[in-house]
Amino acid sequence: MSRPDRILMGHGAGGRLTRELVREVFLPAFANEALSVLSDSALLPAWPGGRPALTTDAFVVDPPVFPGGDVGRLAVCGTVNDLAVAGARPLWLSFALVLEEGAEMAFVERCARSAAEAAREAGVSIVAGDTKVVPRGKGDRLYAVTAGIGAVPEGRDWGDHRIEAGDRILVTGPVGDHGAAVMACRHGLSAEGLRSDVAPLGGLVEVLAASGAEVHALHDPTRGGVLVTCHEVAERSGLRMVLSERDLPVRGEVRAVCDLLGLSPLSSPCEGRALVWVRAEDAPRALEALRKHPLGREAAEAGRVEAPAAGRSPVALETVSGEERPLDLLSGAELPRIC
Amino acid sequence: MSRPDRILMGHGAGGRLTRELVREVFLPAFANEALSVLSDSALLPAWPGGRPALTTDAFVVDPPVFPGGDVGRLAVCGTVNDLAVAGARPLWLSFALVLEEGAEMAFVERCARSAAEAAREAGVSIVAGDTKVVPRGKGDRLYAVTAGIGAVPEGRDWGDHRIEAGDRILVTGPVGDHGAAVMACRHGLSAEGLRSDVAPLGGLVEVLAASGAEVHALHDPTRGGVLVTCHEVAERSGLRMVLSERDLPVRGEVRAVCDLLGLSPLSSPCEGRALVWVRAEDAPRALEALRKHPLGREAAEAGRVEAPAAGRSPVALETVSGEERPLDLLSGAELPRIC
Repeated sequence: MSRPDRILMGHGAGGRLTRELVREVFLPAFANEALSVLSDSALLPAWPGGRPALTTDAFVVDPPVFPGGDVGRLAVCGTVNDLAVAGARPLWLSFALVLEEGAEMAFVERCARSAAEAAREAGVSIVAGDTKVVPRGKGDRLYAVTAGIGAVPEGRDWGDHRIEAGDRILVTGPVGDHGAAVMACRHGLSAEGLRSDVAPLGGLVEVLAASGAEVHALHDPTRGGVLVTCHEVAERSGLRMVLSERDLPVRGEVRAVCDLLGLSPLSSPCEGRALVWVRAEDAPRALEALRKHPLGREAAEAGRVEAPAAGRSPVALETVSGEERPLDLLSGAELPRIC
Repeated sequence: MSRPDRILMGHGAGGRLTRELVREVFLPAFANEALSVLSDSALLPAWPGGRPALTTDAFVVDPPVFPGGDVGRLAVCGTVNDLAVAGARPLWLSFALVLEEGAEMAFVERCARSAAEAAREAGVSIVAGDTKVVPRGKGDRLYAVTAGIGAVPEGRDWGDHRIEAGDRILVTGPVGDHGAAVMACRHGLSAEGLRSDVAPLGGLVEVLAASGAEVHALHDPTRGGVLVTCHEVAERSGLRMVLSERDLPVRGEVRAVCDLLGLSPLSSPCEGRALVWVRAEDAPRALEALRKHPLGREAAEAGRVEAPAAGRSPVALETVSGEERPLDLLSGAELPRIC
């Protein structure tokens, strides 16, 4: 009997079809010792040193394949990056799928291969998985949900509690590429050169840590982009974030697509960028280190932290003309299903 | 502005609505220190002793509320049980949701509360989460995906490599309740007294470990039920599993519903039962210990392990009349969306 070329309900029901899907599609892609046992839980060699970190993300991006990546790569990078910006070295990932009946097997395989490739790039192992199938019209081809375990090295203490007035806000590259690329693809806009920035940031973060700069906090501006991330940091730290329109890098093609769709590059998600809060004096040293890494070549200073001030917005943009414009938190209906 | 009583696309887009959903629905349910920081990764106090275990599961059960539980309780118990049967003490869980636009807020809250209650029962913390929203017709109210971390105590070595010919197979209670309860509910059958067995098994497993019986392996017969679990164990161990029709406990109401729907209780999932492979001489001691625990009161011997024999099925049922009937692995279309 030849293998079906589309997902059937039986692929999710636990019998022979499930087994074939796992052995023929997922195991070859993710091959590693812990996963190959296919038991109830992955048993791992030993706890690492440092402090444990755990994160999870669900990925429902539409369309699931976009310039620069697909939902498989996105799922791995998103989880690796959540660990990395928390200061943790990413170690082990789980990878669960909700497949829609009728999804093309070749597409499922493509996503598994992209996820595996991204895991290799990031130096992590996908050690546990699960697959469920829902009937046609109860899903959208493939939703991926990853969880990740990492370890924060001894003595590293990054977090919003460390941020101080005067700190500089750096960005590791131009912002908004992922959101703009997905939206352009969804709306059938052609945008020469526009690609998602989706990439695993663990290596870049370690380069930054090794630079000797006093890093206070990192975040990856994913859902809601730089805007939402800065609002969250402002709220948790009790400080103001002032971004510089002149300095914050945005690619021309990202700006063009955002203008066309009535969006702001500041609320368009990145999936391979980090915002870095660093002691002011150390900003040049941090930038120098970041720019030596392939994923940080276009790193730039993007703004600064100020003490809170009554009646002033917690997040603001200093325009090219030197005025300050408040940046409000949006209700969030702007960019659905972007990750 | 009052809170919407249904899920909107904006609840998944990362802005103000997402924040309200997290703060008003999920944080109060799951309250714990690691989660309340709401940062990119949960930072946990320290690695435990023992060997690390990681597992993940996606839950797409239809209907999401059934006699004895709902998808929230199921998601937590399923992941806790995968850790427990691997010999790991469950510690930390992540909890991700894919919500359908228009899902009732009260239903989402109910599932969060059930998940939180099951986590308390199991003694685990839900320390990381994520929520995405998909448009109407691209989901089915709520899909939940959990991942779990546990630690296998020093010196505990359970697994199919330990199973030997002669071992007894115990079951911690009657089988097939979860599958029968969900199927009855889906088909509008009334079945007095029929309830899912969904429950966290960590405590019961520790009681068994403390009994002094030489435990070789444990598994939770979820998707595909006892039948699929025994086939997987037979394949991994290279031994035959012979179940006893007389001894294997099945409730009358489970048998009745299965008969009506043309199903076998042996392939109907359990979500609060474990199969235990134990050295033959230790079976009575293990049973005695199990029966003292509220979740093991109806524990019974269900079968035995035999050396493989050419031409004989790897899994068989010894019928009441003493004959042996092969139990084949089904293709798996029998019980879709049961967990």
